[in-house]
Amino acid sequence: MSFNIERNGKKRVVIVGGGFGGLRLARGLKKSGFQVILIDRNNYHQFPPLIYQIATAGLNPSSISFPFRKIFEDREDYFFRMAELRAVYPADNMIQTSIGKIDYDYLVLACGTTTNFFGNKNIEEAAIPMKTVTEAMGLRNSLLSSYERSVTCSSEKERDELLNIVIVGGGPSGVEIAGAIAEMRRYVLPKDYPDMDVSRMHIHLIQGDARLLPGMNEKSSQQALEFLRKMNVEIRLNTFVTDYTDHEVVMNDGARIPSRNFIWVGGVIANPVTGLPEECFGRGKRILVDEYNRVKGQKNIFAIGDIAFMDADPSCPKGHPQMAQPAIQQGALLARNIRAWENGGEAVPFRYKDLGCMATIGKNKAVANIGGFVFGGFFAWLIWMGVHLMSILGVRNKLFVFLDWVWSYFTYDRSNRMILKARPSQEMNELEKRLQENHWGDIAPEERTQS
Amino acid sequence: MSFNIERNGKKRVVIVGGGFGGLRLARGLKKSGFQVILIDRNNYHQFPPLIYQIATAGLNPSSISFPFRKIFEDREDYFFRMAELRAVYPADNMIQTSIGKIDYDYLVLACGTTTNFFGNKNIEEAAIPMKTVTEAMGLRNSLLSSYERSVTCSSEKERDELLNIVIVGGGPSGVEIAGAIAEMRRYVLPKDYPDMDVSRMHIHLIQGDARLLPGMNEKSSQQALEFLRKMNVEIRLNTFVTDYTDHEVVMNDGARIPSRNFIWVGGVIANPVTGLPEECFGRGKRILVDEYNRVKGQKNIFAIGDIAFMDADPSCPKGHPQMAQPAIQQGALLARNIRAWENGGEAVPFRYKDLGCMATIGKNKAVANIGGFVFGGFFAWLIWMGVHLMSILGVRNKLFVFLDWVWSYFTYDRSNRMILKARPSQEMNELEKRLQENHWGDIAPEERTQS
Repeated sequence: MSFNIERNGKKRVVIVGGGFGGLRLARGLKKSGFQVILIDRNNYHQFPPLIYQIATAGLNPSSISFPFRKIFEDREDYFFRMAELRAVYPADNMIQTSIGKIDYDYLVLACGTTTNFFGNKNIEEAAIPMKTVTEAMGLRNSLLSSYERSVTCSSEKERDELLNIVIVGGGPSGVEIAGAIAEMRRYVLPKDYPDMDVSRMHIHLIQGDARLLPGMNEKSSQQALEFLRKMNVEIRLNTFVTDYTDHEVVMNDGARIPSRNFIWVGGVIANPVTGLPEECFGRGKRILVDEYNRVKGQKNIFAIGDIAFMDADPSCPKGHPQMAQPAIQQGALLARNIRAWENGGEAVPFRYKDLGCMATIGKNKAVANIGGFVFGGFFAWLIWMGVHLMSILGVRNKLFVFLDWVWSYFTYDRSNRMILKARPSQEMNELEKRLQENHWGDIAPEERTQS
Repeated sequence: MSFNIERNGKKRVVIVGGGFGGLRLARGLKKSGFQVILIDRNNYHQFPPLIYQIATAGLNPSSISFPFRKIFEDREDYFFRMAELRAVYPADNMIQTSIGKIDYDYLVLACGTTTNFFGNKNIEEAAIPMKTVTEAMGLRNSLLSSYERSVTCSSEKERDELLNIVIVGGGPSGVEIAGAIAEMRRYVLPKDYPDMDVSRMHIHLIQGDARLLPGMNEKSSQQALEFLRKMNVEIRLNTFVTDYTDHEVVMNDGARIPSRNFIWVGGVIANPVTGLPEECFGRGKRILVDEYNRVKGQKNIFAIGDIAFMDADPSCPKGHPQMAQPAIQQGALLARNIRAWENGGEAVPFRYKDLGCMATIGKNKAVANIGGFVFGGFFAWLIWMGVHLMSILGVRNKLFVFLDWVWSYFTYDRSNRMILKARPSQEMNELEKRLQENHWGDIAPEERTQS
C-alpha cells in the first residue's frame, strides 16, 4: 500500500487527525498553494460535544458525523487518507502510517487524546469509555441490553448490577451523561418497561475533585449539583474509583457499588506518538509546543488541540483546557502562520480567546460561563442548543439534530433506542488485522506503540 | 433467567418474530382479552424493503427500525421479550428460548427466513448477505472500506477485487442494490474519490433465472434489465455462482470475476424450528400450514409469513410469495380467527389479495405491477416512494426517511457514508456468549439448531 499522491511541485502539509483543530487548519489552507493531506483512522469527522446523546439514544450517530471526503470534495490538491500514524521520522521529514510512508514539508499533529484509565487494567477491561461515536454506540447497546436483561434475570444481585449505572468523572461529559440517563429513567423507561421497578435503578456520579465541573465557575458547579440531585442522581465528591472486581466498582473509601454499566469519563491522555524525542512530552503525554504550536526542538513539526501543551500563552500559563475552542483557534492561527512563513510575512504568537463554556443537564437546564457572566437554567439551555446547532458540520446534520431535539422535547421520547450492531464482514476483519499488523516499516517491535 | 410474566387468568398468545406478520397479528389482538407475548432476537422491528438503502448510505439504520417496546407502550397485557427460540414442545404447549421456557395457549411462528447459501461453505464465509439492518450496515462498511483501500493499495489485482461488485440474485433486492450502487458510482464516487479511476469499477448482477424479477410481469423484467444496462450494470442471466476461491466469484460456465464485495441475495430459507415433527416441513424448510395458517397436524400452533407454506389457497396453489403482503394479510386474518375460535364465531380461510409488487432502480425509475396494470419509469417510482413512506412505522421515521430522500434527490448525495461500528462492551460480549450457550433446557446437543 502507499499514499499514491504526486506532489505536483507543491509544498506539502500533512495533518494527522481530523478533529476540530485539524479540520480548521485544513480549511485555513484553502487556496494557499499547499498540497494538504489529512489522515484519520475514521473516514468521518465527529462532534464530541454531543456524543453523550448517541449513548442515550437521543441522536443518530450519523447526525453528528461528517465524511471527510465530502468536506474535501471541492478543494484542489486536498487529499484524505484513512490511516493510522505509526511513527514520525523528524530527520527524514517523513511519517510511517498503516498505509505506508509519506514525506512532508510541514507536519501537524492534531491526533487528540484518548481515555485515561491511569494504568488500572481491571478498570480498563470493564469500564465503558465515551470519547468516540463508536464507543457511544457501544454504550447505548450496553445500556439497552441491560434494561432488557434486568426484566428476565432471576438473580436479584444481577438485577442490581444491571440497573445501577456508575459514571466516573464529574466534568462536562460526566454531568451531561448523568443528566441524560436520569431523564431516560424518568420519561422513557417507565413506559417502555412497565414490568421493571424503575425505583431500583440508581445513577451514581463519582467525582475525584471537591466539585463538579471544576473547569467552570463555582456557582455553576453548585447549580449543576443541585440540578442533578433533583433528578435523583447520587453524587459522591472527593471520591476516587480504585478498582473493579466481581461486577463491583470499588472506591478509595472502601465503598462498593455493584454495576455492569460502569461508564468512565474520568480523564484523558494524549494519543501516543512514536519517534519524537522524550523531551517533547509533558504531563499526560501532551506534546510541548511554543507559542506558534511548534513542537519543542523541532523545525517543521507542530501540534495543535488537546494533544498540545503550551505554557507560553500568558492567558493560560498552565496550558489550555482540552476542549474544542483552543483546538479551533490554534488550527486557524497555524494556517495563517504557515502561509506567513512561506510568503515572508510575520507569524503571530497564539493567545487564547476564552469564549466561555457550558454544560447541559437534561431538558430545559444548563449552566454557562460566557464573557464574565455566570448563569444557568432555561436560558443557558437555549444558548447551549443554539451554539451546538451552529457548530455541527453540514446543513443536513443541523437539520436532523434539530428535528430530533424538537421531537424529543415534545414527545419526551428517545427515538433511537435500537440495539444496533454492524455485522463484521470477512473482508473487514481481514483489513483490520492487516491495519494492526502491517506497515510498521523499520520501527523495531519494542517501539511500536500504536497511535 | 425467566420470562417473569404472570398469566392473570388470561389465555396467552405467544408470537415468535416481530416482522410484518407478527406485528400485524399482535395489533389485531388488541383488546381481545388475550395476553400477548412477542419474542424477537432484536429489540426493534425492521423494514426489509428499504434495507438496501442502508447498505448504500442513503438511509440511517434507525430510520427504518422501530423499538418493539415503543409499539407495546399503551397496550395492556402485551409483553415484549428479547429472546431467541430454541425449541417447541407441542405436547407441553411450551417453548424453550434463550431466556427460559414459556407456555402458551396459541403459538404463532412468524420467525421468517434467512439467507440461503445452498450449503456452499466457501460462499457462506465470503459473501455478504443483506437481509437485516445489521447485515446492511456491515455491507455499507465493507463497500466504503473497499473504496478507501482501492485508492492506496499497490497491487492492481487487489484494486480490481476491491472495485468489482458482484451481486448474486436478480429478485427485487438484487435489482435495487445494483441500481443504488450504480447511482453511487455515477454521482458520489467521482466527487469523493477524485483520485480513483471510477471506470475501473464494475457492477455485476448474476441471475440464475432467464430474466430479472421473475415474480413480476415479463415486461417489467425487460424494463428493469434496460434501466440497469443503461446504468452500466453488467447482467448475466441463466448463470449460477458455484464457488468463491482466491477472492474470485466462480460461475457455472467457468467464468470468474475477482471481487471482494460479493453480495448474496440469491435466495432464502426458513429459519429452522426445532421440535416440530418432520412432516411439518416442506420445500426450503417452510412450515406446512392449512388455510387457517395452522401447522400441519397441530392444534394450537400456527405459522404466518415467509416461514409458512400454504397450498390450500386457490389463488396461490404453489404457495404465497415471500413478501410483506401475504405476511400482513395472514397476521390480520389469524388475529380475527383466534378471536372467533375463542368466542364461538366462525373462522375464515385465508385468500391472498394480491396488491401488486414493485421494484425501484435508482432515481426516477421503478417498475410496478398493480391491479393488472404493468408500468414503469417516473410514475412507478413516485408510487413506490409513496407506498413505502406510508408503510414505515412511526411518524418520526416517515419524516426522516422523507427528508433523506428529498435531500439526496436534490443534492445527488448520500449523507450516511460513514464507516460506523459499535464498540463491543465486555458486558455485551458476555451476554452474547450466554445467549449462545445457555438455556437449551433439555434439548440434546445434536438437536440444537439455532433458530
